[in-house]
Amino acid sequence: MRNLVIAGVMLAAATGMSARAQPPKPLTPGDIVAAAPASAWKDISPDDLLVMQMGTRRIVIQLAPAFAPVHVANIRTLARGNWWEGASVYRVQDNYVAQWGQNETEKPFPAGIVARPPHEYWRALSGIALTPLGSPDAYAPAAGFWQGWPVATSPAEGWATLPHCYGYVGVARDLAPDTGTGAELYAIIGHAPRTLDRNIAVVGRVIEGIDALSSLSRGTGTMGFYKEGAEAAVPLTSVRVASQLPAGERPRFQYLDTASATFTRYLKLRANRNDDFFKVAAGGVDLCGASVPVRKTP
Amino acid sequence: MRNLVIAGVMLAAATGMSARAQPPKPLTPGDIVAAAPASAWKDISPDDLLVMQMGTRRIVIQLAPAFAPVHVANIRTLARGNWWEGASVYRVQDNYVAQWGQNETEKPFPAGIVARPPHEYWRALSGIALTPLGSPDAYAPAAGFWQGWPVATSPAEGWATLPHCYGYVGVARDLAPDTGTGAELYAIIGHAPRTLDRNIAVVGRVIEGIDALSSLSRGTGTMGFYKEGAEAAVPLTSVRVASQLPAGERPRFQYLDTASATFTRYLKLRANRNDDFFKVAAGGVDLCGASVPVRKTP
Repeated sequence: MRNLVIAGVMLAAATGMSARAQPPKPLTPGDIVAAAPASAWKDISPDDLLVMQMGTRRIVIQLAPAFAPVHVANIRTLARGNWWEGASVYRVQDNYVAQWGQNETEKPFPAGIVARPPHEYWRALSGIALTPLGSPDAYAPAAGFWQGWPVATSPAEGWATLPHCYGYVGVARDLAPDTGTGAELYAIIGHAPRTLDRNIAVVGRVIEGIDALSSLSRGTGTMGFYKEGAEAAVPLTSVRVASQLPAGERPRFQYLDTASATFTRYLKLRANRNDDFFKVAAGGVDLCGASVPVRKTP
Repeated sequence: MRNLVIAGVMLAAATGMSARAQPPKPLTPGDIVAAAPASAWKDISPDDLLVMQMGTRRIVIQLAPAFAPVHVANIRTLARGNWWEGASVYRVQDNYVAQWGQNETEKPFPAGIVARPPHEYWRALSGIALTPLGSPDAYAPAAGFWQGWPVATSPAEGWATLPHCYGYVGVARDLAPDTGTGAELYAIIGHAPRTLDRNIAVVGRVIEGIDALSSLSRGTGTMGFYKEGAEAAVPLTSVRVASQLPAGERPRFQYLDTASATFTRYLKLRANRNDDFFKVAAGGVDLCGASVPVRKTP
């Protein structure tokens, strides 16, 4: 095979310094991230990490209590109460979602669950100091980043919401005004369906193992549900909050501080790629295209 | 299972008419498409359909000769010359691309192949009558639709380009100024990596079977290449232009005329969903989010 390149998005190229007196190579976004000082990385609390085991694959979700506190509290309570025992991925719709959970009408919730949460489809913009995206957003008057999250906002109307980007996790629900409890969740596995923004509670994002969900067989039933009898739902072996796990078994992650100078440089380069592969820089980037770097804690 | 809805994107809901004197239900984009007159549908030429068989799955690609005529001519010549015999999908990178073809350095091309095509990363805007998107685009000064294709443009600079949307197909290449021949292609299987726009020749889009590519196991090698020895590339059984096939075996497809009144209504509703599931309409839609309807010819 010729190893054709078509720019690996997450690939950090060789660094730009050379022993010879050549002009330095243009940096990639990966180079900027690789060179970030330790102070630019922020630890994610073990209370904000949901750890799902699906057979041999581990899927880790970073929860977003600053945006959906009641739903996130429900999710923690369900995990700690082992409520998802027997749960499975039962819907995979191409270019849309993988959805999991289990029948919440047949299994009593543990104590402390808020059965009818408030909507949490958006929150107040007040209190959010946004690092601006610097490009227009088709779905909101303004967009940027805060505490490691992409945020779509309306300064005039005062709301702020997490967008439905690739890998982002929302609370499945029936028709409004139902908001769902958090017992059934989905992750985006295609182009960001931002029309869902402000219509569903977004509770976090997959930061490890999204490919385990996105490569599952698509369901052949309506809207990608697995057809009972014909297609087997994929069991989730366990769902835990990281803080429940023995210290040695906890996954540990950090996100790049979106208020850091490193992130500003990274974001600028995301919109203006000029490394060897590129002929023309876009001059812009969309909110979901400029993904916030997350790494395992070194 | 509770059949939680989270709005199936392609699902046409029940029509709005009711025998009782209730107000009509708000329409979905699917309703608009289902009610389109026959005159709003345009046949796709069998010369513009590339039909790939991957085991039991058929993948159909609509080619875009109006944007990349030399690369598309190469692709037709390679298919008619049976050049892809023995080809396979050898790279699957999550949230990015599935890539296929075979070693073009070791197998002579059939006669008529342009080995060093012009770049075709964009074309002249002149001659394109755009139906405007009506929302801002983060990657181009203007955006809209023409002859069934989404188009990103700069009226000031006079270029027009096909965007890298989900399912869109581009020509893999090495570092610029190489443009690739068309012998190795990729399809987008994640959030639109629009940074590639104007840096690669986009030659078409998958209109059937994208899920066969997007659900393949991700390669564990660098940039998602399958590791030789450890992971098996997925063979393509045949690659043909539809016009080569016996008349009875040709797939037949139509796209919704993007200059039609139906498309204008569809696009408006894509940006302003107000059917039962939705609480808030976005008021906008991005170029890749407003996918052009394509159907099998009835």
